[in-house]
Amino acid sequence: MIVRFAGLGLGAATLTTVAAASGNTNADVLPPSLDVSSFMAEPVTPRSTLIKDKDDMKVKMEMLIMKIQADFCRALENEEDPSKKFIVDRWTRAEGGGGVTCVIQNGKTFEKAGVNVSVVHGILPVDAVRQMKARGKELIGKELPFFAAGISSVIHPSNPHVPTVHFNYRYFEVTQENGEKMWWFGGGTDLTPYYLVEEDVRHFHSTLKKACDLHDAGYYPKFKKWCDEYFLVSHRNESRGVGGIFFDDFEMHSQEDSFKFVKSCAESVIPSYVPLVKQHRNDPFTSAERDWQLLRRGRYVEFNLVYDRGTKFGLYTPGARIESILMSLPVYAKWEYMHSPSDGTPEAKLTEILRNPKEWI
Amino acid sequence: MIVRFAGLGLGAATLTTVAAASGNTNADVLPPSLDVSSFMAEPVTPRSTLIKDKDDMKVKMEMLIMKIQADFCRALENEEDPSKKFIVDRWTRAEGGGGVTCVIQNGKTFEKAGVNVSVVHGILPVDAVRQMKARGKELIGKELPFFAAGISSVIHPSNPHVPTVHFNYRYFEVTQENGEKMWWFGGGTDLTPYYLVEEDVRHFHSTLKKACDLHDAGYYPKFKKWCDEYFLVSHRNESRGVGGIFFDDFEMHSQEDSFKFVKSCAESVIPSYVPLVKQHRNDPFTSAERDWQLLRRGRYVEFNLVYDRGTKFGLYTPGARIESILMSLPVYAKWEYMHSPSDGTPEAKLTEILRNPKEWI
Repeated sequence: MIVRFAGLGLGAATLTTVAAASGNTNADVLPPSLDVSSFMAEPVTPRSTLIKDKDDMKVKMEMLIMKIQADFCRALENEEDPSKKFIVDRWTRAEGGGGVTCVIQNGKTFEKAGVNVSVVHGILPVDAVRQMKARGKELIGKELPFFAAGISSVIHPSNPHVPTVHFNYRYFEVTQENGEKMWWFGGGTDLTPYYLVEEDVRHFHSTLKKACDLHDAGYYPKFKKWCDEYFLVSHRNESRGVGGIFFDDFEMHSQEDSFKFVKSCAESVIPSYVPLVKQHRNDPFTSAERDWQLLRRGRYVEFNLVYDRGTKFGLYTPGARIESILMSLPVYAKWEYMHSPSDGTPEAKLTEILRNPKEWI
Repeated sequence: MIVRFAGLGLGAATLTTVAAASGNTNADVLPPSLDVSSFMAEPVTPRSTLIKDKDDMKVKMEMLIMKIQADFCRALENEEDPSKKFIVDRWTRAEGGGGVTCVIQNGKTFEKAGVNVSVVHGILPVDAVRQMKARGKELIGKELPFFAAGISSVIHPSNPHVPTVHFNYRYFEVTQENGEKMWWFGGGTDLTPYYLVEEDVRHFHSTLKKACDLHDAGYYPKFKKWCDEYFLVSHRNESRGVGGIFFDDFEMHSQEDSFKFVKSCAESVIPSYVPLVKQHRNDPFTSAERDWQLLRRGRYVEFNLVYDRGTKFGLYTPGARIESILMSLPVYAKWEYMHSPSDGTPEAKLTEILRNPKEWI
């Protein structure tokens, strides 16, 4: 069942009404610490559970990602034509849980902007669980009870001088066959420009570094490197973009400290990216520059469909909402046999950087 | 090293000259049974080897696919603007072997037409070998000496009323760690229309059936079913197109009989497909129909990058020529969040068929 909300101006009353209409028993009044009035839609978890389990990491993560979603969507709408607002789809998953998918398509600033929250649980085939975990302990069991809450977003702007951004922050719990419960966080934010403006890339990386440094001076260098390694289109031996940060299996400190780190990262998305949109969204561009943007979007599609573990996790998860997973794909992409930019052009300059990732700060 | 040929009018003399220039010792004069004068380029294997091993299946398969490539390219050029000919890239693979890639891009009839021959050998990681084999015996060993010769083609026409066709015929040899040599054939031809013309689909399937029936009345039903199962975009629960035939691990009879069957299939590509191009390439179409074609091409990209074992085999093979593998991707593709054709439209009719594959003859 899919319930559509208008993108903005959702008061708690409306939410309650829709929730009631959707058959949930979400009529409980939430305490101020669980204020959902600014969210794009009613949270996935029933209000009674949110109240009862308010100190559980599952609830804390859901509240965080619902807030990040709303803040980011509003920040993007500020850069968009006022008549264009996010479409909000609140969906439920038959096997357990659901999500809230927010999309702008064919906007003036954003050709496609997707911001998706999902909070799902149930039993997972071990193949799907493997896509959730980059490294670390082997999992025991063939079908594992799991919980996953995450926010995932890809923004494909219309103007080729505005970079694409992707971020994803997630929390997992898996119970192994021997009863042992594991939890971890994962996530990252990375930038894919079509034209390189070094100052912008430095601003982006500096903002992420600042968020990391609040927690551990070793995080940024470590997670910057991990990001370069992860977002590699290996059959082309080039990076998807100019990187950012990426981490997985994050459980270094207490659960609470880990959560605080993830919160800082997620809160750094707006200051790292939105200024670049503001600065370049009205830049003049040529049809050749648009063409280059579409070719680079072809590479983005290659990475997402061939390598991205988040996408694979989605495609392997029974009952997954495919439209929310593949919302990361651009409206248009292009492939040209043997395309190669001419020496000395801005396109060649970008390609050079993608083949040789560098330190930005 | 890449050598470019003009697409047409390649006499044997030109080929010999280019071969000499490319450093091969291909100056041997071939006997009439090994006539290469009509081929798009000099075969991959040196002439001296072709002569010496003329009865070896490796040579017979290379000669077959070079001829099929040339015949198909000329048949397509007949439907294209006379000024637009195939670009021919003859390439070598550092690890052993090479290929001939023929491409038309942005033609009047063909937005992208790729016809690729590759004849490669060397040592393969077992992961890559696994992509070559659908089922059958497990392979023994971690790194296996292999030989693979195949032709692979995808045609993306400009006009949405002309379907896309794909075909691929291949021969493999693998030597296991225990010294046992295995060989098998694989292949198939399948059609992906944007608008359903049942008569055309019946013509296509009948032509394939006729080729199969020459060898075994059980082949067409079996390989038609296999095709429906293979070309499934499983995350969308819809077929890529209206099927055709598909088989793998084919070694049912003697090597010679297997080869003859594959030859019949490969020779049925032109009569099954080219009449549809001829009939529809000048059909009028609307921009909405073009749009639908691009959305369906997005699904084609999803299948090729997420599921296709041929593509994965390529991406996992060290030193593979990526541009030849990904030449199967369309020039343009499109994704739209939650797109769904309206009831009763031709687009809905096609979607219905893709969700419920049927018998055509």
